[in-house]
Amino acid sequence: MKTEKTITGEVDPDVLDYTVGDDPVLDRALVLWDCLGTAAHVTMLSEMPVEPPVVTKDEAAKVRAALAAVVRDPSFEVREQDQDVHMAVETRLTEELGDLGRKIHTGRSRNDQVAVDVRLHIKDELLGLEGEVCDLAGALVAFGRAHDRVPLVGRTHLQPAMPSSVGVWATGHAEMILDQLENLEAAYRINDLCPLGSAAGYGVPLPLDRQRTSDLLGFARPLHNVFGASMARGEDEAALLSALAQTMAALSRLAEDMILFSMPEFAYFKLPRAYCTGSSIMPQKYNPDVLELVRSKTAQVLGLQTAALSLLHAMPGGYNRDLQDCKGLYMKGLSITRATLRILAKMVAGMEVDEAALKAGFIPGVFATDAALRQVAAGVPWRTAYHDVRDHLERLSSEDPDAAVAAKTHMGATAGLDYGLYDGRIAAAREAARARRAALLKCIAELLPNESQEM
Amino acid sequence: MKTEKTITGEVDPDVLDYTVGDDPVLDRALVLWDCLGTAAHVTMLSEMPVEPPVVTKDEAAKVRAALAAVVRDPSFEVREQDQDVHMAVETRLTEELGDLGRKIHTGRSRNDQVAVDVRLHIKDELLGLEGEVCDLAGALVAFGRAHDRVPLVGRTHLQPAMPSSVGVWATGHAEMILDQLENLEAAYRINDLCPLGSAAGYGVPLPLDRQRTSDLLGFARPLHNVFGASMARGEDEAALLSALAQTMAALSRLAEDMILFSMPEFAYFKLPRAYCTGSSIMPQKYNPDVLELVRSKTAQVLGLQTAALSLLHAMPGGYNRDLQDCKGLYMKGLSITRATLRILAKMVAGMEVDEAALKAGFIPGVFATDAALRQVAAGVPWRTAYHDVRDHLERLSSEDPDAAVAAKTHMGATAGLDYGLYDGRIAAAREAARARRAALLKCIAELLPNESQEM
Amino acid sequence: MKTEKTITGEVDPDVLDYTVGDDPVLDRALVLWDCLGTAAHVTMLSEMPVEPPVVTKDEAAKVRAALAAVVRDPSFEVREQDQDVHMAVETRLTEELGDLGRKIHTGRSRNDQVAVDVRLHIKDELLGLEGEVCDLAGALVAFGRAHDRVPLVGRTHLQPAMPSSVGVWATGHAEMILDQLENLEAAYRINDLCPLGSAAGYGVPLPLDRQRTSDLLGFARPLHNVFGASMARGEDEAALLSALAQTMAALSRLAEDMILFSMPEFAYFKLPRAYCTGSSIMPQKYNPDVLELVRSKTAQVLGLQTAALSLLHAMPGGYNRDLQDCKGLYMKGLSITRATLRILAKMVAGMEVDEAALKAGFIPGVFATDAALRQVAAGVPWRTAYHDVRDHLERLSSEDPDAAVAAKTHMGATAGLDYGLYDGRIAAAREAARARRAALLKCIAELLPNESQEM
Amino acid sequence: MKTEKTITGEVDPDVLDYTVGDDPVLDRALVLWDCLGTAAHVTMLSEMPVEPPVVTKDEAAKVRAALAAVVRDPSFEVREQDQDVHMAVETRLTEELGDLGRKIHTGRSRNDQVAVDVRLHIKDELLGLEGEVCDLAGALVAFGRAHDRVPLVGRTHLQPAMPSSVGVWATGHAEMILDQLENLEAAYRINDLCPLGSAAGYGVPLPLDRQRTSDLLGFARPLHNVFGASMARGEDEAALLSALAQTMAALSRLAEDMILFSMPEFAYFKLPRAYCTGSSIMPQKYNPDVLELVRSKTAQVLGLQTAALSLLHAMPGGYNRDLQDCKGLYMKGLSITRATLRILAKMVAGMEVDEAALKAGFIPGVFATDAALRQVAAGVPWRTAYHDVRDHLERLSSEDPDAAVAAKTHMGATAGLDYGLYDGRIAAAREAARARRAALLKCIAELLPNESQEM
Repeated sequence: MKTEKTITGEVDPDVLDYTVGDDPVLDRALVLWDCLGTAAHVTMLSEMPVEPPVVTKDEAAKVRAALAAVVRDPSFEVREQDQDVHMAVETRLTEELGDLGRKIHTGRSRNDQVAVDVRLHIKDELLGLEGEVCDLAGALVAFGRAHDRVPLVGRTHLQPAMPSSVGVWATGHAEMILDQLENLEAAYRINDLCPLGSAAGYGVPLPLDRQRTSDLLGFARPLHNVFGASMARGEDEAALLSALAQTMAALSRLAEDMILFSMPEFAYFKLPRAYCTGSSIMPQKYNPDVLELVRSKTAQVLGLQTAALSLLHAMPGGYNRDLQDCKGLYMKGLSITRATLRILAKMVAGMEVDEAALKAGFIPGVFATDAALRQVAAGVPWRTAYHDVRDHLERLSSEDPDAAVAAKTHMGATAGLDYGLYDGRIAAAREAARARRAALLKCIAELLPNESQEM
Repeated sequence: MKTEKTITGEVDPDVLDYTVGDDPVLDRALVLWDCLGTAAHVTMLSEMPVEPPVVTKDEAAKVRAALAAVVRDPSFEVREQDQDVHMAVETRLTEELGDLGRKIHTGRSRNDQVAVDVRLHIKDELLGLEGEVCDLAGALVAFGRAHDRVPLVGRTHLQPAMPSSVGVWATGHAEMILDQLENLEAAYRINDLCPLGSAAGYGVPLPLDRQRTSDLLGFARPLHNVFGASMARGEDEAALLSALAQTMAALSRLAEDMILFSMPEFAYFKLPRAYCTGSSIMPQKYNPDVLELVRSKTAQVLGLQTAALSLLHAMPGGYNRDLQDCKGLYMKGLSITRATLRILAKMVAGMEVDEAALKAGFIPGVFATDAALRQVAAGVPWRTAYHDVRDHLERLSSEDPDAAVAAKTHMGATAGLDYGLYDGRIAAAREAARARRAALLKCIAELLPNESQEM
Repeated sequence: MKTEKTITGEVDPDVLDYTVGDDPVLDRALVLWDCLGTAAHVTMLSEMPVEPPVVTKDEAAKVRAALAAVVRDPSFEVREQDQDVHMAVETRLTEELGDLGRKIHTGRSRNDQVAVDVRLHIKDELLGLEGEVCDLAGALVAFGRAHDRVPLVGRTHLQPAMPSSVGVWATGHAEMILDQLENLEAAYRINDLCPLGSAAGYGVPLPLDRQRTSDLLGFARPLHNVFGASMARGEDEAALLSALAQTMAALSRLAEDMILFSMPEFAYFKLPRAYCTGSSIMPQKYNPDVLELVRSKTAQVLGLQTAALSLLHAMPGGYNRDLQDCKGLYMKGLSITRATLRILAKMVAGMEVDEAALKAGFIPGVFATDAALRQVAAGVPWRTAYHDVRDHLERLSSEDPDAAVAAKTHMGATAGLDYGLYDGRIAAAREAARARRAALLKCIAELLPNESQEM
Repeated sequence: MKTEKTITGEVDPDVLDYTVGDDPVLDRALVLWDCLGTAAHVTMLSEMPVEPPVVTKDEAAKVRAALAAVVRDPSFEVREQDQDVHMAVETRLTEELGDLGRKIHTGRSRNDQVAVDVRLHIKDELLGLEGEVCDLAGALVAFGRAHDRVPLVGRTHLQPAMPSSVGVWATGHAEMILDQLENLEAAYRINDLCPLGSAAGYGVPLPLDRQRTSDLLGFARPLHNVFGASMARGEDEAALLSALAQTMAALSRLAEDMILFSMPEFAYFKLPRAYCTGSSIMPQKYNPDVLELVRSKTAQVLGLQTAALSLLHAMPGGYNRDLQDCKGLYMKGLSITRATLRILAKMVAGMEVDEAALKAGFIPGVFATDAALRQVAAGVPWRTAYHDVRDHLERLSSEDPDAAVAAKTHMGATAGLDYGLYDGRIAAAREAARARRAALLKCIAELLPNESQEM
């Protein structure tokens, strides 16, 4: 049997295909983070109180410079025989720095490395994603503000229910999407713990300073237990995918409303033409394909999360290779969710409102609750008023939708929206992400000199 | 066709079966919370600046007393014709208080009510569950402390890998489980927002004071937008189920390790006999059924969460009846997860350690990394030392496991565990849950007099 | 620690709760099948060529009579201390028949028994379910026939697309639902293999005649390998749940169309009033709750299937207790799917058609493809005609929907439906199920005398 | 806003990215099938009884020849502006054949085309996959035969249970995997129905002969209803993914056993070294990464199926763009499952058996059931014998595993395996797949002359 040589031994070429999989492609996204992790690790090694030092401070500086060069080198790539980014970087450094390159892996394992790479990558991506959440929420808030009190038939069970408004519709979706920041924040915090120094999950007989690498990389704190650190792999990615799956669920509900309300039978909203696609057989069609794909991509992200959690199900303690497949799952989930947020923000920004069509939807039944509440205002008990209206639906007549919209003044209702509250939440979320990104850039600037400005 | 009369109209009996489903059973868990929500709502109604008042302050007090009596009444039940707890309570209050009972639903819908009931119930359950997380983590920490430096072969890919210890194993699992508190906290915060006053999702032309009911019920703040509040239903339960699914994944990994390490081929741990079950055909068997069921129940909770997110997928805005089915999903998820935490805590507490069996597992290969690191200590570059050991595996010999365990002194390694850190995290989590529960009990005591002491 | 005595040993009461779970309730559905399996097993034992015989032919007859009595006894129940139906039946027989009762488990394990019980139960339920598929498909075909050429706007992307008809809509859904019979048939065939005689998955040193018990119970053939038979548990239930999940997906699409087309903005169909439910706040509402619950129950069945497959994921060979939880999953999946089929059949049967509303939906764009095809008929290449129509959409005008419906005469189009084909498929499916049920009843009549007529 | 021109209109470039997605890559797998479908469609158009003919028979022959050339052209590719394979082929034919190229889409839509392409592709892939199922089952049967009566401790709950053998272990897994052919067959049959001629799901006013295209393409029969045909899209891919998810579940159980039994604590089996991979930190490691990845890929395929079914959940009737995303899901599921089958077959073929280690596992308890059955042979009732052995476990002693293996002679037990039965099933499955493939190749040879030999 022909076998293929890798840095860790010889294997059947089919095995390489099956085990390496998409890693050379996926790992492109990790080059910066892998170099950053290695820079921190080597810096810490150079400070470790052992004689002779594993690497000297000068050597550490050389390694950091070589890592910075890798990050800057657009032609750097991970080849199948490298298996992954870690071996690709070690090979490059060994070519350039000889024995010094052979030292950088001291006291580490690849599990250790990929765990830290993934967390750094997820943190960075989450900051970008949170900005996109703000962009979409901001587009919805702007849309709501622009058409604040335009009447819209509120529905339950998809049936006309009560008077509502475009403002309530748009900021309701904005609020639901902003609330996803809570889930995303949990994913961020779970990923903000540093696994580095767990080696293969059991530590090493070297005085590694795990607090130091955690600090150098800007993590909130190290994962304490080395075995726990290795088991936390997978959990971090599952936490991210859970937050993404929930976020996508919220987005799919917005998309569904936009699909429904832009059907000609409603015509409440007109989607921007450039965001619709045609048919190869029906020349007249402008279809909301983008919005339909938001639905299907929501199902896809749910599938990715199901895969991640099923993968973790009953996995024995310690690193198991299954975990490698979490990487592709979370990366796909991130790219889908971010693309969806971006395209929805553009579509909302370009959507038009047809006020006449919106008002035409106000059939008499929509005013039934208001009619019952007028009886309540006159002292009739609610349930009695309810039954009276129910038994005489024929008495209901069309009322003025604008007046109905103006009459609901309590918090969060058609005439009780506080747009400033949304502006404030969005601004605060942006500021928090900005501050975190600045801290991350500072770490990069310190560990990989000359790189920070080019991110 | 024979139809059946309900408070909201006549329907086919099959429809009642299909739509009411398990509600009469499930809603038993909501009686307290439904009464609490109604007490807050009626209190707020009595303070509302309208003339004539919808209910007077005296009437509100009567309603609160009647609600307190419902909560105290062990014979109170939800019948199928009531459909749900909300109608059951309204019917009871109407029987007792006449027209006053007919007034309590003023400015509310059942969607509104169930949304607030579910959130109160989830918050309360989460506090209990967090205590159980602490109990299990505490049992693991105690187990680790009791057998701290007992050597255990650390594994990766299930193969013997490096020296580890029972202390590292036990606190590693404890840490992974404690880290689930981050996910559970996100679920708590998402459920700590008050939807009350959204009516059917579109508000009402009454000056409801939504901040007031939110405060009376002890929520962090109201959901602002009324439409958003109605859409947040389902999201709250999905957030809980996501946290539960992740928690169960962590528990299933602990269970898997316990199953493996109690097999006679390892015999590292001995499970408490009273937690094992027998076979109807094999008289000699003591099986770890409980641990196997932890695995299957992990799969079940994943299924519940998949169901919840698939249910939300592309659901149109506004209340849709689909959401009702979230209730059974989250309740089942909670009861499974809590029972699992409780039984695992007991099993860990009763587990014995076989030190001889643990040491017998230390085959020479386990010391390979340490051997390579000794070369590193002598100045050999890591990768060179690694290849040297790899090429001469026959040179490896059994070493002293105790010495190997004592040699790894860095943070979180076999000789670097900080038990106080775990004690501190557990104590802090318990205190936080205690304070939240006290606040909730205070709300109950104020809104449902004489009830708080009986919870 | 207080322990509780069971037939297989003493366990902690919490363990009994956790491990027995809902079995006493779920196992009610298995009483008949468990008695049937035992009757076959004991009959085979009595024919086994060993001296002395394990049981004599007379004893076997006594056991069969006692089992028939259990099946007839409405007060027979499974108590928690019995753990499951198998022990409940053995205990009962031992009370009645003394040592003879103690013999019935010879050469069997409970895994063996439950595997055969579940397969018999699933086969029986599938026959009922297939009848319900036929009922719903029949209702749709009848609805289509009654309104065959009533024009309906065909949609893609939910946008008006081309002329279609109520007949095409209804029989299209009927066909999609009938095609599920292919999936259900695979589930039936997978469950039509007999596991009995695998003991605990490794056989016994007794000359069991496994072909004989398979034949007595009416299975297509035995599972050959005893270890394979034990591993097939779970696979059988997963196969069923896969078929159910796909069936529910098809039903949810029908429900979604019915929800949309009964909205007042379309008003194509009017749902039977007795199948709609009201609102506690909006007196005018008649909501399609049943159809919404079809959607959510589709998500639930998907969750059940996800749970089953996640449970099987990487389970080691041989019986593991995880498999017990498959039982609740498949039973819930069956009862949901069957109830959904039944209620949808009733709703379709009671649905009315508003022809005027249907025709009102024919906006000019619906005729665009037909306009392009008229150019094709005159010799213009398709893509050229398509672009010509696309560039001059303003030229399109309303045409006669009836004429458009009459013009599409090819197979399966508006004027090309073959209702007889659907009638034939439904009749064939009913006949196949009837024949299978008759064979099953014959087995019951032979093994449990006097019982067949009472099923 | 800059827009981009496509054959069906101008769209925003982001929309093209979002909607086209991976189609240019995925559609490479469909080129042959798309050309085949078009060849059948155009052949049928040329036979359609209209004057003037849409295309003449000579023109149809030219189109077929041009399509055959596309299939032969290795440089043919789908570019992003083509959006998909259908437009890429039409564009190419229009470049080559002018107006004739513009005619090939007459009476078709892309939904129609992709539906037929996907089904042809799935059928072809399933035939290959079934061959791979046979290869793996064959490897297991060969492994079993080679080590037929080598004793192996049978386990339940992972605990030693009863005497078993390598033959039973290997053919048990083989049987479970072969039984997946039932699921795969259902997927084949569901995909063996021809959707062509449904146009966009509503037919066309042209006398299309849908039976003819179905026959030309070798389908079992056409889907009758045109709307049903469009809705069947998605269902077909979900059926495939269900079968794949179940097949992977079976494979993951085999992988789990191989992982466990090759651990040094068991050492029953030795995995082929070239199929194991090393560690970057532990020089001594040979890890079963491939088998671990079988587990994780099982979770991935479950996720893909969950995604597909969630995507279908409550989708309105008629084509919706969501369905496009099913394509990537099923293709990924197929390639994962096929690669897994292939690599497992190789690993099983290279696996070695350590007979001494296998026998060393026979602790006395393994013989408990046999001891009780010896009492039964002497006339003691089973349950009495069971309790007697249970109460005196200390009396059990080690027995001869070979004798125990020889003593279980009934069907499918250690001494009752019928290897010929497995050989026969495998041979029959291979022959069935071969015959189907021959029929498919014949269709290709007839519709795309000169192509069949080059597949």
